[in-house]
Amino acid sequence: MDNALAYTDSNFDQFVDELKDFLRIPSVSTDSSRAGDVQKAARWLADHMKALGVGKVEIMETAGHPIVYGEHLVDPAAPTILVYGHYDVQPPDPLELWDSDPFDPQVRNGDLYARGSCDDKGQLFMHVKAAESYFKTDGSLPLNVKYIFEGEEEIGSKHLPQFLSDNKDLLAADVAVVSDTALFGDGVPSITYGLRGLAYVEVTLQGPSIDLHSGVYGGAVHNPINALAKMIADLHDDDHRVTIDGFYDNVIDLTPEERNTFASLPFDGEAWVQEVGASKSKTEKGFTPLEGTTARPTLDCNGVWGGFIGEGAKTVLPAKANAKISCRLVPGQTPEEITDKLEAHFRKHVPETMTLTFTDLHGGHGALTPTDSNAMKAASDAMEGVYGVKPYMVRSGGSIPIVADFKRILGQDTVLMGFGLDSDAIHSPNEKFGLDRFRAGIDSIIRFMSLFSRSN
Amino acid sequence: MDNALAYTDSNFDQFVDELKDFLRIPSVSTDSSRAGDVQKAARWLADHMKALGVGKVEIMETAGHPIVYGEHLVDPAAPTILVYGHYDVQPPDPLELWDSDPFDPQVRNGDLYARGSCDDKGQLFMHVKAAESYFKTDGSLPLNVKYIFEGEEEIGSKHLPQFLSDNKDLLAADVAVVSDTALFGDGVPSITYGLRGLAYVEVTLQGPSIDLHSGVYGGAVHNPINALAKMIADLHDDDHRVTIDGFYDNVIDLTPEERNTFASLPFDGEAWVQEVGASKSKTEKGFTPLEGTTARPTLDCNGVWGGFIGEGAKTVLPAKANAKISCRLVPGQTPEEITDKLEAHFRKHVPETMTLTFTDLHGGHGALTPTDSNAMKAASDAMEGVYGVKPYMVRSGGSIPIVADFKRILGQDTVLMGFGLDSDAIHSPNEKFGLDRFRAGIDSIIRFMSLFSRSN
Repeated sequence: MDNALAYTDSNFDQFVDELKDFLRIPSVSTDSSRAGDVQKAARWLADHMKALGVGKVEIMETAGHPIVYGEHLVDPAAPTILVYGHYDVQPPDPLELWDSDPFDPQVRNGDLYARGSCDDKGQLFMHVKAAESYFKTDGSLPLNVKYIFEGEEEIGSKHLPQFLSDNKDLLAADVAVVSDTALFGDGVPSITYGLRGLAYVEVTLQGPSIDLHSGVYGGAVHNPINALAKMIADLHDDDHRVTIDGFYDNVIDLTPEERNTFASLPFDGEAWVQEVGASKSKTEKGFTPLEGTTARPTLDCNGVWGGFIGEGAKTVLPAKANAKISCRLVPGQTPEEITDKLEAHFRKHVPETMTLTFTDLHGGHGALTPTDSNAMKAASDAMEGVYGVKPYMVRSGGSIPIVADFKRILGQDTVLMGFGLDSDAIHSPNEKFGLDRFRAGIDSIIRFMSLFSRSN
Repeated sequence: MDNALAYTDSNFDQFVDELKDFLRIPSVSTDSSRAGDVQKAARWLADHMKALGVGKVEIMETAGHPIVYGEHLVDPAAPTILVYGHYDVQPPDPLELWDSDPFDPQVRNGDLYARGSCDDKGQLFMHVKAAESYFKTDGSLPLNVKYIFEGEEEIGSKHLPQFLSDNKDLLAADVAVVSDTALFGDGVPSITYGLRGLAYVEVTLQGPSIDLHSGVYGGAVHNPINALAKMIADLHDDDHRVTIDGFYDNVIDLTPEERNTFASLPFDGEAWVQEVGASKSKTEKGFTPLEGTTARPTLDCNGVWGGFIGEGAKTVLPAKANAKISCRLVPGQTPEEITDKLEAHFRKHVPETMTLTFTDLHGGHGALTPTDSNAMKAASDAMEGVYGVKPYMVRSGGSIPIVADFKRILGQDTVLMGFGLDSDAIHSPNEKFGLDRFRAGIDSIIRFMSLFSRSN
């Protein structure tokens, strides 16, 4: 382990240059005109892994973009980890807001600016460079490693669950390791043990069959916007709890220990929401903003539209009003359950003047990983070794559906050891990744591989 | 009069062709990119009037779109009418719901389909063609006529009151005549003696300063769409009465006689709303649909938008949500009063997590005209001559603010002799105007001009 750490120290500039090469390939998976670049990124990555010593590397086709599979098995008796990452990136738009070309990586003030620098090319590359550091010093790895790097994360990992099902034996491992999350704060290490799920639906209320003149019909025909506004308003009570029947039935409540830990974290909820321009927080009664965003289910309208939305005044009484509504779920809740309950709620409460269309757009399971496993302990010790302080065990409010899939399909818990920051602008212009965090990530992974190899 | 009626009979197909030419000009006043077309429509109309014999025609500039002024004075001792109409039209959106191009007029089953066919190009053109029928037969008109055709009715007739004030002498007349309303039913003639007013506003709620990730912030930051939905929902109580403080204070209630007359009209409120696809009516408690739409004030959302409204799912917690909201007013209420009360309501109830922007977009006064004047009697007899039955005296739910301005600024009552139908879809896709009604309108106007010329 020390040799590997020393190798990283000596070769770090070279690592950064190689990462820049990887980032120059505009592997935007949502953009069909970039399909060739997505392929190119997969090939670049596979060639790079093969060259540095990974025993077996293959580009495995899916119905969409390919998965780069790598495998280096050192000893059947040693533990095995399954490293997941993604080499596809978000679109760079709006281009005019970037200070430098998103696909011409630039270092400014110690941060590497490029689309994908943090999400997730930079973070997956930490695993590749950790492996290289072992190969170039010890000649091998301290444990068995399997890699799956996919090219469709930014478009919902559509083909990954099927890939997992089709390759259960190939992918067998003791634990999955993912670096695609953020640190609790800059210099404040953390490991994510909880993720929220998602149930995302669209509802349309139709009243009259055509748009009407509000002067002629206003006062006799129920307005779908007003009706939808009432239905949306009624989804929360005065305590900002969701009113859907049974919504909280299967929520796994925070333990008193977790609440104590949350309360002890260096986190000021009011300052945090004020950073993004909100005047004050709004959270389900009885919970803190941190609990509300990471460990409680929520309901938000993500979009609403209906009637005349152009400039000026048009006196229309519209035929329809529409909303996109999603719930963040917590472990215990499933997207199927909550989507069904949402639909039942809307069908029960739709006014008799309206026709409801309810569409299930998309869902994902939350996840909760035991914090006392050998892998979690190894990860915690590894990060402590780098940062000098124990990482916080935290929950994240976002969703990484693949984590639930690893558990459901492969039976693997996931260690979420990420080195991003909320301020890395991962889906925005000027995405960046601090080189100090790139370095801390490689070091943490080198330490984790060694510690976990000895833990079984 | 008989010669003029015969001329219309012989030349009706030509009249329709000319109207089609007029309708081909997309004079959408709300759309600044169409300003040239609005100008073009004004010029087309002025040229047309001049060519057929109107003594003096002028395009009079305003701070906005111009007014086409025409004047044909035959005898200082004869009565004078001031004919008002508008040559601008509503936007045609949503275009994909039209069965034929809104600006390529098509006749189907005796109806002329085009944006503006009924509202109001087709109806103002009835006055032009009635005049032509007199010019081409008697060589003159039976009374003095002044015409003002404006190009800003669909954007609130912003510059018309100033124009009236600036031209009081020029516009002096015994009565104003407007054809911009609907018949009580197909083949059921009516004259409108009451109009509703309008107060139209836009509200924006802003929570955070930027769009946020709903996974990261959902549960701590109040969602502007959810907040706006609640504010909109709270604008009505369970009796579908508007909850704004003092909203009903100045309403001139229907007299018992009016309620009796309303009840005796051949009108089935449920059948009427079902014709436009509504399953049942929704009216302020204690009132019929006919009362609700013509003699009671109402509040409708005309548009709502916020967040992600594209295809699919985007997990955004948006910075803003917006709504266009308008109230139909009844005589006694003023737009200034109700706009102020709306603003006070929104300012009082805006949640402390939100910043409110409140914009007064436009307003207009309602009107109530005496039904026993010479002009009203002449109009009634004229329509009886065409239809064979006395027209009903009715109130309309729509707003023609200019009617209140004619009274206030010029001291003129207005005869509202309109030939539209509620089913003409005047602010919707597939706007139409029945050619039989275009014809009945011209005939009624020819008769009215003759009858009113003899009534003084």
